[in-house]
Amino acid sequence: MNSFYKTDAWQIIEEGFHPEMNRESESIFSIGNGYMGQRANFEETYSGDSLQGSYVAGVYYPDKTRVGWWKNGYPEYFAKVLNAPNWIGINISVDEKKIDLAKSKISSFLRILDMKQGYLERIFRVTVSENKTIEICSRRFVSMAEPDLGMIRYAVKSLDFDGVLDFTAYIDGDVKNQDTNYGEKFWEDVSKEIDENSGLLITRTLKTDFHVATGMSLEFIKDNIVIPVKIRNFNRDKYIASSVSIPVRKGEEVVLNKYVAVLSSLNVEKGNLAKETKSRLHQAKTKGYDKLYSEHTREWEKIWSTSDVIIEGDISAQQAIRFNIFQLNQTYTGKDERLNIGPKGFTGEKYGGSTYWDTEAFGLPFFLKTADPKVGKNLLVYRYKHLEKSIENAAKLGFKDGAALYPMVTMNGEECHNEWEITFEEIHRNGAIAFAIFNYIRHTGDNEYMADYGLEVLIGISRFWSQRATFSENLKKYVILGVTGPNEYENNVNNNWYTNSLAVWTLSYTLENIRILESENSAKMSDLNARINFNISNETTRWQDIIKNMHFPFDSSRNVFLQQDGFLDKELKPASSIPASERPINQNWSWDRILRSCFLKQADVLQGLYLFEDQFDTETLKRNFDFYEPMTVHESSLSPCIYSIIASRIGNIEKAYELYLRTARLDLDDYNNEVSDGLHITSMAGTWLAIVEGFGGMRISEGKVFLNPLIPVNWQSYSFHARFRGILFEVKVTKDLVTVNNVSDKTLPITLCGKEYQINGSEKVILNLKVDFFS
Amino acid sequence: MNSFYKTDAWQIIEEGFHPEMNRESESIFSIGNGYMGQRANFEETYSGDSLQGSYVAGVYYPDKTRVGWWKNGYPEYFAKVLNAPNWIGINISVDEKKIDLAKSKISSFLRILDMKQGYLERIFRVTVSENKTIEICSRRFVSMAEPDLGMIRYAVKSLDFDGVLDFTAYIDGDVKNQDTNYGEKFWEDVSKEIDENSGLLITRTLKTDFHVATGMSLEFIKDNIVIPVKIRNFNRDKYIASSVSIPVRKGEEVVLNKYVAVLSSLNVEKGNLAKETKSRLHQAKTKGYDKLYSEHTREWEKIWSTSDVIIEGDISAQQAIRFNIFQLNQTYTGKDERLNIGPKGFTGEKYGGSTYWDTEAFGLPFFLKTADPKVGKNLLVYRYKHLEKSIENAAKLGFKDGAALYPMVTMNGEECHNEWEITFEEIHRNGAIAFAIFNYIRHTGDNEYMADYGLEVLIGISRFWSQRATFSENLKKYVILGVTGPNEYENNVNNNWYTNSLAVWTLSYTLENIRILESENSAKMSDLNARINFNISNETTRWQDIIKNMHFPFDSSRNVFLQQDGFLDKELKPASSIPASERPINQNWSWDRILRSCFLKQADVLQGLYLFEDQFDTETLKRNFDFYEPMTVHESSLSPCIYSIIASRIGNIEKAYELYLRTARLDLDDYNNEVSDGLHITSMAGTWLAIVEGFGGMRISEGKVFLNPLIPVNWQSYSFHARFRGILFEVKVTKDLVTVNNVSDKTLPITLCGKEYQINGSEKVILNLKVDFFS
Repeated sequence: MNSFYKTDAWQIIEEGFHPEMNRESESIFSIGNGYMGQRANFEETYSGDSLQGSYVAGVYYPDKTRVGWWKNGYPEYFAKVLNAPNWIGINISVDEKKIDLAKSKISSFLRILDMKQGYLERIFRVTVSENKTIEICSRRFVSMAEPDLGMIRYAVKSLDFDGVLDFTAYIDGDVKNQDTNYGEKFWEDVSKEIDENSGLLITRTLKTDFHVATGMSLEFIKDNIVIPVKIRNFNRDKYIASSVSIPVRKGEEVVLNKYVAVLSSLNVEKGNLAKETKSRLHQAKTKGYDKLYSEHTREWEKIWSTSDVIIEGDISAQQAIRFNIFQLNQTYTGKDERLNIGPKGFTGEKYGGSTYWDTEAFGLPFFLKTADPKVGKNLLVYRYKHLEKSIENAAKLGFKDGAALYPMVTMNGEECHNEWEITFEEIHRNGAIAFAIFNYIRHTGDNEYMADYGLEVLIGISRFWSQRATFSENLKKYVILGVTGPNEYENNVNNNWYTNSLAVWTLSYTLENIRILESENSAKMSDLNARINFNISNETTRWQDIIKNMHFPFDSSRNVFLQQDGFLDKELKPASSIPASERPINQNWSWDRILRSCFLKQADVLQGLYLFEDQFDTETLKRNFDFYEPMTVHESSLSPCIYSIIASRIGNIEKAYELYLRTARLDLDDYNNEVSDGLHITSMAGTWLAIVEGFGGMRISEGKVFLNPLIPVNWQSYSFHARFRGILFEVKVTKDLVTVNNVSDKTLPITLCGKEYQINGSEKVILNLKVDFFS
Repeated sequence: MNSFYKTDAWQIIEEGFHPEMNRESESIFSIGNGYMGQRANFEETYSGDSLQGSYVAGVYYPDKTRVGWWKNGYPEYFAKVLNAPNWIGINISVDEKKIDLAKSKISSFLRILDMKQGYLERIFRVTVSENKTIEICSRRFVSMAEPDLGMIRYAVKSLDFDGVLDFTAYIDGDVKNQDTNYGEKFWEDVSKEIDENSGLLITRTLKTDFHVATGMSLEFIKDNIVIPVKIRNFNRDKYIASSVSIPVRKGEEVVLNKYVAVLSSLNVEKGNLAKETKSRLHQAKTKGYDKLYSEHTREWEKIWSTSDVIIEGDISAQQAIRFNIFQLNQTYTGKDERLNIGPKGFTGEKYGGSTYWDTEAFGLPFFLKTADPKVGKNLLVYRYKHLEKSIENAAKLGFKDGAALYPMVTMNGEECHNEWEITFEEIHRNGAIAFAIFNYIRHTGDNEYMADYGLEVLIGISRFWSQRATFSENLKKYVILGVTGPNEYENNVNNNWYTNSLAVWTLSYTLENIRILESENSAKMSDLNARINFNISNETTRWQDIIKNMHFPFDSSRNVFLQQDGFLDKELKPASSIPASERPINQNWSWDRILRSCFLKQADVLQGLYLFEDQFDTETLKRNFDFYEPMTVHESSLSPCIYSIIASRIGNIEKAYELYLRTARLDLDDYNNEVSDGLHITSMAGTWLAIVEGFGGMRISEGKVFLNPLIPVNWQSYSFHARFRGILFEVKVTKDLVTVNNVSDKTLPITLCGKEYQINGSEKVILNLKVDFFS
């Protein structure tokens, strides 16, 4: 796999103009700030292939479900992530000749994503006619300091002529989603205002009635001085524009600063949107580009100071991990508990709905280890608030008495998805939401959460498992029939080992916490029981029976857990036997062929071993890894990270490193031929975990941190920060040494390569791996 | 279940006006002649609920496939049965007051389907205002003698006033399908002509460019005399109409005869359609209503003379079987090898595409026993002509080297359907098409067919099975993974017993016929081998291995065949445990719940026992019946007939009778709450089989007929005609006697209750059941 982009420690660089790769690059160079974001579409007119995308977090549209064949229980709507008004537009004419980048002669093209400072830049030349070439340098960012502000610094220089440049800066709300079910547009005009100071477009979404105000204010600069201009304004339905003509001499540069504010009715009352947006624009312009930029980069500096992973000796791996950390932080900042981590963040519209089990299984562990505990709590409270809807979702499938089934895909708690094998059967998602509660508490020590929120969710989910499991008279065991596991290349299977494991774990963990709350705060437990009509002894007898008598498919000859009943009846072949021309198989094989093959899209049994690793010895992990890994095609972005972590755990550092590169450079190198649709945001968390939990061997257990670091052979060192119960610490691993630096003021309990330490605040421990291993 | 319709031996009768049941009645009272047909829509304006439906065989539209989530291999289009121009329309005004049946006062309403003579009649009164009541009597039919002609005799009588009646007879081509994927219309205008003699509308289908010419010619009659009228003609896009005003006195009746001709470009060159249609109208009108009607009824008389089943002592069963025979004969006459037996015939548009495996599994055995052998041959040749497309269908799913997978649903050989669990996995359909060849030859003795057509199809299908089966190292057996059996309440199961049985049977039967052709006509075999690139020894070694080593799931404790691997792990409960409010489960349960339940939609293992009955002893049949029957919800129309036949076979006449009523009165009593969409045409063949193969115990084997009759306790007698290799014979069964009357001129070899007979032409055998059984 050769990278299309130039390798650099802090930047992603596209050299040369590649229209055939434009959709891919639009995804890769996306920018965002957790509140809004956008694909790296060009400011200029571009009639070539492009996926326009500008997004405002939490603004969605419930698009009427489209299916070939309706099944009872399908949701009426799918919540689509909305392509929002495009505010980047700047059309350029040179001596009245309009520039279309798809038709112009472009040279010296550079597109740069600077991850350290968080901006997107393009530098290139356009030859309009003989002896008439301009150089454009545009830099834009969405502010990390003031998330409702976006900024474009757009410089045009005449290289070889005297003439007139026309700039038309616009906001276009007449946008649509590529991914619509019925080809409809989702926005309509509310109001437009435009004068010499600023332009403002307010549009509303149909059905959901979100109002989004998008404002712009322009300034033109020559020689560092703002110049007076005569603005010609236009507007039409859902569109405003300002045009300015500026004479330019050979060698002279004109800079257009486009200040943008985007406010939505999620945060501002509809009646105040116009006023507030204009006020925000005024503040921004008063502050000026330089100050806005420096405040923005200062925020990124803070983020990097505690979240950067530094790899010495492997610039490709270095670039990749920063790209992942950068995009994760662009997607979710944990400031708003109504938001979640969309699978494509602000880089594309595919998959719609903001929230998948990815959040709990991948996003949460990342944010628990890198962010303030309240970020993790926001993610959990998001689900707590959806409990009632989850009980409704379960009721639609025939469950009762408060059983909760969290949705596969959702924006507001209602299920969006409509494939029966996923929507109705991929129920392991429910387990991920239960496990998240355990994971949050072990990382943060926030036991209050269990009593206040967690247990209610756990009981809802346990009720679901209890009703969903049935007793097989044949096996004399409980079974869970008709499910789809994490490996979606199997549908409607019986006794998915991972799902059964999660079900039993959830029941046990819920029982344990019921007992704890009963003994520690019986009044609170009684309140809860009354509120959710829960009769402990009546309901939990069956739970205990299920825990004791669950069926787990097992191959006693190989001594491995079986992904599901009957897995061994397949033709077992390595993924390496699939011809390259047929990869990825999901783009080349019909679905039935995929299903009856042995090939795994992603970790399934291994996803369970990852969660419940402490229940198994290394030999068990190894046997299962060695059985499943060769059959795995990793066509889910969520796959290689988990395999990499387990490969590290069993000491297979070569394999762990190979899988790390695959997860870390999944999008940069477009392993699965789908980056054009957007980035795989949630799997990026897995990449970070592949370093910290994988190579670093970091675990949280028994109220302390464990570290068992390995280092890939071609790395000189790597270092990262992590958090545990409010304690921030830095880990650096070289070939010989592991350094743990407690940069907080509290004592860090840690087991480092099997040795117990209590590292005081601001102190460090250095362990010599070579010496100490043989001591 | 109380029938909504009045019980009568030859008629279906709706008494009273029931708008709330209108869609159901529109289905039930449908008329057709194998060439065209229609639902029982009202001639008059009716603004109430109605499913408009008029159909011309073979005219379809490839509607762009609609899915939620695309899978590789899905077809681009679904062939929709088209709602064609409506030619029944007659609007009535009384003294300029337009009648809308949904808004008028209707009394004495009768709707009658006369099955003996093949017409639809309505007699009712409409009170327009006080002292202004008319009586309408409309009778319409589509001619069995001249299938391109339709006829309405529409009589209006003034009961109590002198006034003016306005008749507006029209043809409306601006119709649409209710079942469209994108709400589009499928027809456009080609031409319109209308004058005092006739009106003609030609419309064409988009994409497929079928042209359909629909013409009408009117005559008005008072006191049996054609009266001169002044016609006012209108036309607009896709619509022509003629209006006539006729004064009427109290007690006087005016009759409008509307002659209709419908010709399509399937049979007439586009350029000649207008001329031909006008010519047909002229011929029809010259002949006149009475002659057309008598020619039509004479055809029905012929049909009934050899296809009627007469039941004495059970008028409900009598009505039901005639309804089934009537609708089957209305749907398919076997005259055109391009046509097939649509699941709803001419009674609705649901399910689209004309051809399902129903044709081979249900339709064919009926026509083989009731019609000229060339009818059966037409059905087989239809599939032979689709062999190439079936090889393409298989190739889309990754099969190669001439493997053929016949489509689940098709109009022209291409697969139409788009649910992966059906389209890609319900592959047992391929076996039905192989079995049909065997079945055709054993009924007709047409061994030529095998060499000329059959073997090529068999080899294509065998190649498919050979590639589709995989070897399980675990079981040391061949397995067929990821299939959907006939019981569609299971999806993506492994080793469906029925599918595996069919696969092995197909391979054996193909091998047997390769050997026969090799020895009997090795040149022909060589030709075939060369044409389809078939290397016998290379390819058939694996076939033999599969035949020897196929895995068949089996429960050794109950001694029953298992529907699929893991079936026993379900909670086994009788269908009687499902609350009535949750029936049918497919309208009340989510799909996952249906899938993990033990409930069968239809015969699955039993479908196999039906096909391969001679391989099993009665005890085996009985054990399997007793195991599966209680779990069967019969929510497929194709289910109860098979169960009924097997119930008869194992001597359980009470159960067989109960199931017979369920299959025979499925639509009349609307067991599955879906008659509004149209009738279950293909299952109607199963109803006939439930009498002839079930109660009558008729089998074809070893080159002769077997009969082992039983009789339901409340029947005095039943009789039917059947055919075997050109020999037509009549069977009558009473409590005591079985009479077999050979009405042909050839000798009939028959084994009657275990006794061998050779019945000469025009002779009969009478067996006294009571005496002979004890003799």
